Amino acid sequence: MLMHLSSWPEIDARLKSTKTVVVPIGSNEQHGPTGLLGTDWLCPEIIAHAAEQTDDSLIVAPTFNIGMAQHHLAFAGTISLRPSTFMAAITDWVHSLGRHGFERIYFLNGHGGNIATIEATFSEIYAAPSFQARKSRTIMKLRNWWDLPGVTPLCNRLFPTGHGAHATPSEIAVTQAAYPDRIKTADYSPQIAPNGPIRDALDYRARFPDGRIGSDPAQASPEKGQQIIDLAVPALLRDVQAFTDEALPGT
Amino acid sequence: MLMHLSSWPEIDARLKSTKTVVVPIGSNEQHGPTGLLGTDWLCPEIIAHAAEQTDDSLIVAPTFNIGMAQHHLAFAGTISLRPSTFMAAITDWVHSLGRHGFERIYFLNGHGGNIATIEATFSEIYAAPSFQARKSRTIMKLRNWWDLPGVTPLCNRLFPTGHGAHATPSEIAVTQAAYPDRIKTADYSPQIAPNGPIRDALDYRARFPDGRIGSDPAQASPEKGQQIIDLAVPALLRDVQAFTDEALPGT
Amino acid sequence: MLMHLSSWPEIDARLKSTKTVVVPIGSNEQHGPTGLLGTDWLCPEIIAHAAEQTDDSLIVAPTFNIGMAQHHLAFAGTISLRPSTFMAAITDWVHSLGRHGFERIYFLNGHGGNIATIEATFSEIYAAPSFQARKSRTIMKLRNWWDLPGVTPLCNRLFPTGHGAHATPSEIAVTQAAYPDRIKTADYSPQIAPNGPIRDALDYRARFPDGRIGSDPAQASPEKGQQIIDLAVPALLRDVQAFTDEALPGT
Amino acid sequence: MLMHLSSWPEIDARLKSTKTVVVPIGSNEQHGPTGLLGTDWLCPEIIAHAAEQTDDSLIVAPTFNIGMAQHHLAFAGTISLRPSTFMAAITDWVHSLGRHGFERIYFLNGHGGNIATIEATFSEIYAAPSFQARKSRTIMKLRNWWDLPGVTPLCNRLFPTGHGAHATPSEIAVTQAAYPDRIKTADYSPQIAPNGPIRDALDYRARFPDGRIGSDPAQASPEKGQQIIDLAVPALLRDVQAFTDEALPGT
Amino acid sequence: MLMHLSSWPEIDARLKSTKTVVVPIGSNEQHGPTGLLGTDWLCPEIIAHAAEQTDDSLIVAPTFNIGMAQHHLAFAGTISLRPSTFMAAITDWVHSLGRHGFERIYFLNGHGGNIATIEATFSEIYAAPSFQARKSRTIMKLRNWWDLPGVTPLCNRLFPTGHGAHATPSEIAVTQAAYPDRIKTADYSPQIAPNGPIRDALDYRARFPDGRIGSDPAQASPEKGQQIIDLAVPALLRDVQAFTDEALPGT
Amino acid sequence: MLMHLSSWPEIDARLKSTKTVVVPIGSNEQHGPTGLLGTDWLCPEIIAHAAEQTDDSLIVAPTFNIGMAQHHLAFAGTISLRPSTFMAAITDWVHSLGRHGFERIYFLNGHGGNIATIEATFSEIYAAPSFQARKSRTIMKLRNWWDLPGVTPLCNRLFPTGHGAHATPSEIAVTQAAYPDRIKTADYSPQIAPNGPIRDALDYRARFPDGRIGSDPAQASPEKGQQIIDLAVPALLRDVQAFTDEALPGT
Repeated sequence: MLMHLSSWPEIDARLKSTKTVVVPIGSNEQHGPTGLLGTDWLCPEIIAHAAEQTDDSLIVAPTFNIGMAQHHLAFAGTISLRPSTFMAAITDWVHSLGRHGFERIYFLNGHGGNIATIEATFSEIYAAPSFQARKSRTIMKLRNWWDLPGVTPLCNRLFPTGHGAHATPSEIAVTQAAYPDRIKTADYSPQIAPNGPIRDALDYRARFPDGRIGSDPAQASPEKGQQIIDLAVPALLRDVQAFTDEALPGT
Repeated sequence: MLMHLSSWPEIDARLKSTKTVVVPIGSNEQHGPTGLLGTDWLCPEIIAHAAEQTDDSLIVAPTFNIGMAQHHLAFAGTISLRPSTFMAAITDWVHSLGRHGFERIYFLNGHGGNIATIEATFSEIYAAPSFQARKSRTIMKLRNWWDLPGVTPLCNRLFPTGHGAHATPSEIAVTQAAYPDRIKTADYSPQIAPNGPIRDALDYRARFPDGRIGSDPAQASPEKGQQIIDLAVPALLRDVQAFTDEALPGT
Repeated sequence: MLMHLSSWPEIDARLKSTKTVVVPIGSNEQHGPTGLLGTDWLCPEIIAHAAEQTDDSLIVAPTFNIGMAQHHLAFAGTISLRPSTFMAAITDWVHSLGRHGFERIYFLNGHGGNIATIEATFSEIYAAPSFQARKSRTIMKLRNWWDLPGVTPLCNRLFPTGHGAHATPSEIAVTQAAYPDRIKTADYSPQIAPNGPIRDALDYRARFPDGRIGSDPAQASPEKGQQIIDLAVPALLRDVQAFTDEALPGT
Repeated sequence: MLMHLSSWPEIDARLKSTKTVVVPIGSNEQHGPTGLLGTDWLCPEIIAHAAEQTDDSLIVAPTFNIGMAQHHLAFAGTISLRPSTFMAAITDWVHSLGRHGFERIYFLNGHGGNIATIEATFSEIYAAPSFQARKSRTIMKLRNWWDLPGVTPLCNRLFPTGHGAHATPSEIAVTQAAYPDRIKTADYSPQIAPNGPIRDALDYRARFPDGRIGSDPAQASPEKGQQIIDLAVPALLRDVQAFTDEALPGT
Repeated sequence: MLMHLSSWPEIDARLKSTKTVVVPIGSNEQHGPTGLLGTDWLCPEIIAHAAEQTDDSLIVAPTFNIGMAQHHLAFAGTISLRPSTFMAAITDWVHSLGRHGFERIYFLNGHGGNIATIEATFSEIYAAPSFQARKSRTIMKLRNWWDLPGVTPLCNRLFPTGHGAHATPSEIAVTQAAYPDRIKTADYSPQIAPNGPIRDALDYRARFPDGRIGSDPAQASPEKGQQIIDLAVPALLRDVQAFTDEALPGT
Repeated sequence: MLMHLSSWPEIDARLKSTKTVVVPIGSNEQHGPTGLLGTDWLCPEIIAHAAEQTDDSLIVAPTFNIGMAQHHLAFAGTISLRPSTFMAAITDWVHSLGRHGFERIYFLNGHGGNIATIEATFSEIYAAPSFQARKSRTIMKLRNWWDLPGVTPLCNRLFPTGHGAHATPSEIAVTQAAYPDRIKTADYSPQIAPNGPIRDALDYRARFPDGRIGSDPAQASPEKGQQIIDLAVPALLRDVQAFTDEALPGT
């Protein structure tokens, strides 16, 4: 069930049987010479929507498409929230969903740069009930799509060298599978991009002139992307089910 | 040119010829018994993407899909930012786009409840240079899609009674044109919803029990929606062009 | 009853019979070559105090004299809050008045630039109970003094040309009626000021060199100002009464 | 020169000869059974306006009429900003005035409860240039009107017992001199109110049931108020002059 | 009982008999040519820990070691919070301690520059219950160590001239008593530092080139420091006891 | 060189030869039945101060002793900042140190719960220059003391079972080595604490009734703690040196 294509009575009815919702979350940021700017929000959206196609009982919220990408701001098309803004926005999403009775909110994340801020936000959200000596209305879980069981091993098999950390062939491949008419090519130089630390945007661009980190996206193909999606979908469904089934203390 | 399906070098190249970007912006909120929760962000997205199909030189950013909908929070599926959060997020979008050289940012809005906060945010953004006695790097424009020249007259012709103010047949129709497999039906009682002021969420639900304000969405059809889209697309293109062409003092 | 010239037991006693309070709200900002910097907070104060003279049962709070005027900051004497500050301050006023039992708070506004931020603030205030599934303690209403029934038609009759949008002859006239010893004159060039969009302060000053927008304040006179006041006072009293009498759902 | 009754060209012209502005600042809060709610903003306004009458070269800004009065919130008519809001608002006033070229901003304060927050705000304002290794554009000074040279000794002579700390006969007297038709009377019990610490609003009301702290306002008279004003006015003018004349390092 | 060297069950047990906790609070900032950067947090820590040695029933929290020192930022080693940050942090400390059942929180302060912000923070903390018409869970008290009964008279006797206001011989002496191996010497020029107002950091450094205000720290000695500590310790214990014993209204 | 026991001229002089500073950072929070509340800030302080004893060229800032520990708030003595407060405070520390010329700031962390917020803060700090297209004045590094090369392998050898994740024998041992007179004992039941997810404070206490996660602190001894310290000290010195020596792009 895609929330944005449903009516409120449909969500209301579904809340009688499930209290879990999946929020695809990512970033709009440069992904090297050929990667789509939307890669990091498209990947979790692609996987979550495919999972919803497989099992309509999965409730999928709209995609949270702008995250924390300050380090990519020296490349055109990157849109970033400051971490403090990102925290406020995630908080409002969680409180909105919790208002309706969703008790377990599962963020399927597509951007490594989001992780710290999302985790900090969870703590900010929990801090309010913790200071007030009451239980939180919602529990939240963060799962990067590449950490779904089996996905990273598959990516490593598909791309034993040049997988890297940004503009990876696996994320490029996932978007190629979903948007085959948007596949772009380029001559990469070097073929495998350098590695290094991530700091501010100018430092990033000086280290990683075309935006990639450690990757060779030329290895991506729609077929490999589909393989990843096909593995990720059932893994996501199982992971969400496990989150839904997790017993909480005192309940 | 859809930003999220482009690469950074493509945006970089396009910035040589245009400094204007269109941001579809809306809300995910109840739209009565049959309207899609995503109606208010889908409508500007549908129109903007159709315009981009017509004229590829239009640069369209990802859709800002969650806005200010606190009054709808008593209906499941509504996700709202607080105005203060919304302001911070819009600010970061503008500063990100301005960072790359976009000088004119056109928000195509789909939600009446967003207007005040978006306008207040423009003032917040302008306030920084105003206090510092420097010019703003970007100028911003807000346009509701129904205020594009000709659109409201057409809607009034199509729906001379029962257009109303929320879950209107015109917005429902636009989404029906784009998502014909998601058309929902219901018995409306009353056929035309009541009118009244908008305050907090419980007050809203007490006044407008099924979520509609003043509207009869049963009049919507995909054909009428397509008529609206077909009128809105060239109107948008002309409006963006006029915004791009507007002379600024001292330039 | 002017709150600031009353004692707390007097307010306490009056709260037994009314729960409505009027807050004059405006801005301190340039009003062209001859307009008073205080024009936008003086006008609602003048009208509200005159109404209180007519009907002592009207409770009038102190005047909120600094609003959102970032665009006027290139002219000396303008004092502006950033929208975010303005929101915080209005919120605290509302919560203070609500703390005492005022349930309906009527803002009589004198500055167009305040409107978006005041409306956004109302949403921010309502958002707290909306997220918490409780009713708001207070309801708020914004009324620009020129939107009181009959006022704008009168202004249009008095000033059929050159009314404009800033430093209008009608607002200048209202202050002339109240402060006849502060009437200033100047040669206006052009007689009727230009029109245009409002953005940051330097842009504003470049477009509107003497501060006026579309207006010819030379037409103002104390007599015309008094006519406006005389019309606005009973209109305000009726409007506040209607707000007081409005039935709320569930009450 | 009262800023709000001046035009921008008048302020602009005056800025050629002086860079100092006086801001009356206070609070709207309970002042015992008979004191005006506006006492704390009226007193500095009365004194500053009287000084401006004496010496027109004094530039007086509009009165900042709502301050930090959380402890009085259990008494009707009190309006308080939270300290954090108060800080933001003072900051925006200072930056607005500094924008025009005012380099020395003198706050004439009427409320003891404001002092800590105003001082903290000065530090917040100075912190920005301090972190950036640049000089502050403005310097600020806080002066309570009762700390003007000679004022407190006079008050002690006029009211040797029962002066107290809140709703003092001296502040009541000042407002009586200015608003003789608003003099109120009551039987005070006890004649001299108790003393004690100031904490939250309910604690305050439990300690000080009628709002007074340590005072016997029955001793106030318009004549005594006028004596205080007559002493305060030249003291203010001298104090502002001394502030204006103070040499700054490196200038 | 030093909180940081205790276990939670120990604190839990102690909360059965006392609800008061002492928080040493200060600043890390320049203290002239010879004073330790930590002087202002070391002094209250030294005194509070010595008091705890004398009377183990005193509960002492960890030292809040960074305060409001923006004016010292032109001297290396100074670390300052902005007042707004300082307020947020103190608030969280108070709410954490209040969460466990501490009802009276005594801040033993070592830095004059902290006073305004700490007092403003107390008001911010009290404002929440004041707006909500409930009692505060905690009461807070601020005591500068030099304001403990008897301390300033002793300091004046020990240093009749050249005590000054910053890098005073008394605070230097206290740290010398506790850290005798860290005593530093310098030629002071002038022997007694100048006086003046405190504003931003560059202004401060221009006025007070070596960082001292009005003081001659050469007079400090470990022996004099020990005298001060020996007087302050019992004064602190009595002061905390009086705070603990203070009757609150309605209890 | 311990910053708080140095004078500003000493820091100033040292800044000529090094631009790196180490900040021990941790948390004050429950550590099971026997662990010190200060464990998480004492451990990095112990290691950093020991390193400074070994090599005086290491500049060590005061210890940042309160971090993000909302999940421990159901246990007495825990003091936590909300993540948003923590971010503001770290930001001010970094900007203070950067103001003096420290270009590389190394946080030696003692609390796992701090990691996400510290990383998010780094991004917040970098975001400002990234949005402004300038380079960051400082670079920051986070290192948990147990991630210093060799430390975790040693801990695993010392405590092959029952190391766990909170109130671990290794951190308890480090504090035992430094504070041997504060060693506490208890009967643990179960001997090895349970594992589970970390959410809000009541959830935490329900899952982990005595506060430990997965650990058996009874295995700790001062001797083992000293072994850990002895390994960590040279590892820290090397790690800081490597950070200092790291080449930055364009320099």
